Amino acid sequence: MKEALQHKIDYKTKPPGSLGKLEGIALKIGLIQNSLSPQLKNPTHIVFAGDHGLVDEGVSLYPKEVTFQMVMNFLRGGAAINVLCRQNDIALLVVDAGVDCDFPKDADLVHAKIAKGTKNILKEPAMSAGLCKKAMDKGCEIVNAEFKKGCNIISFGEMGIGNTSSASLLMNKFTGRSIEECTGRGTGHSDEGLKKKITIVKEASLKYNVSSPEQIMATYGGFEIAMMCGAMLQAKNNNMVIIIDGFITTSALLTAYHMDKTILDNCIFSHCSGEKGHKAMLDFLDVEALVDLDMRLGEGTGAVVVYPIIKSAVLFLNEMASFESAGVSNKE
Amino acid sequence: MKEALQHKIDYKTKPPGSLGKLEGIALKIGLIQNSLSPQLKNPTHIVFAGDHGLVDEGVSLYPKEVTFQMVMNFLRGGAAINVLCRQNDIALLVVDAGVDCDFPKDADLVHAKIAKGTKNILKEPAMSAGLCKKAMDKGCEIVNAEFKKGCNIISFGEMGIGNTSSASLLMNKFTGRSIEECTGRGTGHSDEGLKKKITIVKEASLKYNVSSPEQIMATYGGFEIAMMCGAMLQAKNNNMVIIIDGFITTSALLTAYHMDKTILDNCIFSHCSGEKGHKAMLDFLDVEALVDLDMRLGEGTGAVVVYPIIKSAVLFLNEMASFESAGVSNKE
Repeated sequence: MKEALQHKIDYKTKPPGSLGKLEGIALKIGLIQNSLSPQLKNPTHIVFAGDHGLVDEGVSLYPKEVTFQMVMNFLRGGAAINVLCRQNDIALLVVDAGVDCDFPKDADLVHAKIAKGTKNILKEPAMSAGLCKKAMDKGCEIVNAEFKKGCNIISFGEMGIGNTSSASLLMNKFTGRSIEECTGRGTGHSDEGLKKKITIVKEASLKYNVSSPEQIMATYGGFEIAMMCGAMLQAKNNNMVIIIDGFITTSALLTAYHMDKTILDNCIFSHCSGEKGHKAMLDFLDVEALVDLDMRLGEGTGAVVVYPIIKSAVLFLNEMASFESAGVSNKE
Repeated sequence: MKEALQHKIDYKTKPPGSLGKLEGIALKIGLIQNSLSPQLKNPTHIVFAGDHGLVDEGVSLYPKEVTFQMVMNFLRGGAAINVLCRQNDIALLVVDAGVDCDFPKDADLVHAKIAKGTKNILKEPAMSAGLCKKAMDKGCEIVNAEFKKGCNIISFGEMGIGNTSSASLLMNKFTGRSIEECTGRGTGHSDEGLKKKITIVKEASLKYNVSSPEQIMATYGGFEIAMMCGAMLQAKNNNMVIIIDGFITTSALLTAYHMDKTILDNCIFSHCSGEKGHKAMLDFLDVEALVDLDMRLGEGTGAVVVYPIIKSAVLFLNEMASFESAGVSNKE
């Protein structure tokens, strides 16, 4: 299949290789779907939301309530992710994975609250092993429901005040990079704020001795990150195309990767985030992002902004004429 | 207006600056349109096609007939630019600026042939001053027609076997960079082919002593490049947003820039081409491209692939909620 796909790509009416990274994406999606004419069906974006006990220590610039407030913003259609999903005809699902607040019963979200936020990891592990597993299982379930409705390309995002600290800790444990290399400004810390954040994250890193991906996720993760990790593993099991967003999404993938290394076969890396650490995560996985727009908003916005380029790759493969069909002379 | 736009951008429900390069585009388009709610109307892409006498010397891997054949491919909808324009709802205009062949009278293109290809610049200038002016004037006219139909955002592309050599010569004359720095592999030259191309381009560079932008364009350009240059200047006069593509398009812009430096206020640089020299052109203009997808196909494909990202920038500015309107707490 690989050779047949490459042949089809090379004989399109263009100089060989001249569509650059789009050619690599077309090849990858063709291989995932084992098809010379792959199709992107019912593209879906899922935002998982959850709160973090560590926020009590002052790791974020924004108060914890913002997680709840932003989810309400999602439900009213006013956030960046709403605008981008509408633009690109991508279905948007919002999941309460563990927000520290009660949503109205009739709110148009997936009610999957595991608990009202994680524990403060300077005092105890973020989640029990049981709750972490429950979150991951729920992620599988949510992805399966979309898969059964015909979705074959999916992306993930998150909302959770404080969750860059969790992502930094997951990165530190999985890649072995120092806390300084793993910790960035999040929503916009000053030098002083960043210094304080690093001190707290470092203390959390030293507090526990954990090694399995499940233990690391339960100790340092968040409900939204664990649920996303489960969702990714299930998307891989369903052989879906997975578009990977930025820093926090990649921390969920790092965990999933340590459970199933073949997941990378299904992943397209959309953008390199402006959040410090993301580039090193991508280097660790030995992958390259399609674009670098210096974005660091979260919600999975990078993945959704880049979706049209991924679609372009599939469309050129399916719709462009070949030298032969167009009657165009090939190289001399 | 700049401060009001920046305030609107900063108070959207996101950490300040977190939409990265999209924020700069939103600001730029708001400034062009002098509006807090800019709109992109009737996006249009124009492909200019023309032949080059220098092809007789063997500067291209493909035979000259490919220019005609590819235009026919455009008219049948089978080229990369067709696929991408269809995907992104961009109107596509194909212009015969100077193809060395007769098109059927009823062909769905803009019949604007100035001559059947340029002269071989190793023997005489590519165009007379009169024909070059005629091409530029025709470019103005074509853009004006689209502007009058309501288009306020436009991009340009080209088709012309041999035209990377012209673009290299324009670059050499306008930036002062060496022929080696300005000359790349075009549609895919081997080391040997590139060496031969450099020798020919260098000979052409030394043959004439020209200094005004008009003289340089007439001597070294092509009908499609001159027409594009005129089109760009008119788009600036109409205060349209101009999306700049890759190497050849930027060579047309370099010429336009030397006639009207303020044209840069209206330009968005879409992608950095894989063709050697483009990055140095962008550096000369002191601008940065949005993405680098390693594309080097021509036809303006880079500009059209990137269009959805430009649209995302305008949409977030218009559609996202502010902290206040969404009832979201701002930074502590």
